[in-house]
Amino acid sequence: MSVAAYASPQLKAALKEISAEMDRRFDALLPIPNDPRADLYRAMRHATIGGGKRLRPLLVFATARLFDVARDAAGRVAVALEAIHVYSLIHDDLPAMDNDDLRHGKPTVHKAFDEATAILAGDCLHALAFEVLADPATHADPFVRAELIADLARASGPSGMAGGQAMDLKADGTRFDLNTVTRLQQMKTGALIGAAVEGGAILGRVPPEGRRHLRGYAHDLGLAFQIVDDLLDVEGDEELAGKKLRKDGEQGKETFVSLLGVERARQQSRMLVDQAIDHLRSYGEEAELLRAIARFVIDRRG
Amino acid sequence: MSVAAYASPQLKAALKEISAEMDRRFDALLPIPNDPRADLYRAMRHATIGGGKRLRPLLVFATARLFDVARDAAGRVAVALEAIHVYSLIHDDLPAMDNDDLRHGKPTVHKAFDEATAILAGDCLHALAFEVLADPATHADPFVRAELIADLARASGPSGMAGGQAMDLKADGTRFDLNTVTRLQQMKTGALIGAAVEGGAILGRVPPEGRRHLRGYAHDLGLAFQIVDDLLDVEGDEELAGKKLRKDGEQGKETFVSLLGVERARQQSRMLVDQAIDHLRSYGEEAELLRAIARFVIDRRG
Repeated sequence: MSVAAYASPQLKAALKEISAEMDRRFDALLPIPNDPRADLYRAMRHATIGGGKRLRPLLVFATARLFDVARDAAGRVAVALEAIHVYSLIHDDLPAMDNDDLRHGKPTVHKAFDEATAILAGDCLHALAFEVLADPATHADPFVRAELIADLARASGPSGMAGGQAMDLKADGTRFDLNTVTRLQQMKTGALIGAAVEGGAILGRVPPEGRRHLRGYAHDLGLAFQIVDDLLDVEGDEELAGKKLRKDGEQGKETFVSLLGVERARQQSRMLVDQAIDHLRSYGEEAELLRAIARFVIDRRG
Repeated sequence: MSVAAYASPQLKAALKEISAEMDRRFDALLPIPNDPRADLYRAMRHATIGGGKRLRPLLVFATARLFDVARDAAGRVAVALEAIHVYSLIHDDLPAMDNDDLRHGKPTVHKAFDEATAILAGDCLHALAFEVLADPATHADPFVRAELIADLARASGPSGMAGGQAMDLKADGTRFDLNTVTRLQQMKTGALIGAAVEGGAILGRVPPEGRRHLRGYAHDLGLAFQIVDDLLDVEGDEELAGKKLRKDGEQGKETFVSLLGVERARQQSRMLVDQAIDHLRSYGEEAELLRAIARFVIDRRG
């Protein structure tokens, strides 16, 4: 999978650096113990090290950069966000859910190990995310830590990512309209993308009212990202994507593409990216990486 | 299931009151939404309302009482602890794990709903636990909230509950010795029992060094509890227990009973309860509920 091939040089460099940093951080976080939990840790390492777009970590860093946040703090928040994202992928891939064999070009966790290990590896990454955020090393001020945790729990729970996934479960039985699909995707992927951007801003001690533009950026970026995902599911290359495609159509699920058609969906994603970038108008050069991410989201091929 | 039938009058009253309070809190926390997530919420309600020993909430309240903690704060910590406990039961009961059909005398979540809903209901309760703790309503001081969260994440993650469960997965293939079984159970059930007691003490602003005796109490109580669980698995009544028994023997798992024999296991549980109560010697009347819980743990029949 070569996601970076379609990115700007600045974004390409940032992606490479952040991917390496995430690998290093997960490696340090997950030393294989010399006891019967070895497979559990191997499973968590399999899922977290050496793969993935690292979009959420990138968003944490790109936002943190606006507010001169300490690099290590951003890295810890980024690894927590990514741990939540990866746990959700592990569980989503399970036979009872999406039943996928391939993820990031590798066997899914329940294929490489077994279902029980995959369930527990997801649960452990879920807990580890909060353990990392609650650690004083993330931020000296407990108020900031508590706010990061509240935000991540909300974004990943029944009103966010997991709630969106539960709606998605019902999507093949019911005809969802555009409003419902939008809300579903807003929860399923948008909430965590929002938490990544908010995480950078919380570390920068930006009060909630000062995060309005960033929330707008994240909202439009998240929707654009999902529309492109739906387009890639129809038109994409399985090898570049590193996962099985053309599933939504087979399952009879409504998507942005099935509801809008390819052309209008593409237009919509472009409009959302323009809007996302427009939310950043009060920022200067320091927001260039956030802008590059937005442009990349619609140019990507995997 | 009539757990309370074997408890002291004081404990019986406390159990009844706390069970009702937990039901009320989960009811308020989980209103069924008028959207495709309705089943997800029904599944969470099925698992959290109207069942369970509520041992962990009881321990939070009994410890909080030592330090004049506000009732509502203890209730919120108790509900978070119980949400984590219940999520772990939902996932443990899945076909890929223990494959249980019955829990607290009711169908398990994947039986009453389906596997995908059970996986997500567990994930959502997991996130909700941290959302509840991170909320300023739990404690005005963010330091206390962050400490509660760090403690719960540690107790439920790969070094605690979920790690113990991962060890347990390997228990039917390997012959575990007494040390390994002790460590496994220490993680699988002891860690969360410890977090319940620590939670009450953290709310009481007891510094870590001042919690040593309470940690000793929780450690011994947790082991005694597990030994009695192993005894009940061999000798217990399935109806009182509200779940399938005699599984450890069928699966060839080593337990305290298989390693020590029934008589020595029972002696050991009595000794541990005496030790647990002895850890409370510096407390007076206010610790009577904690003592009653310890005595109840070995007298229970389900």
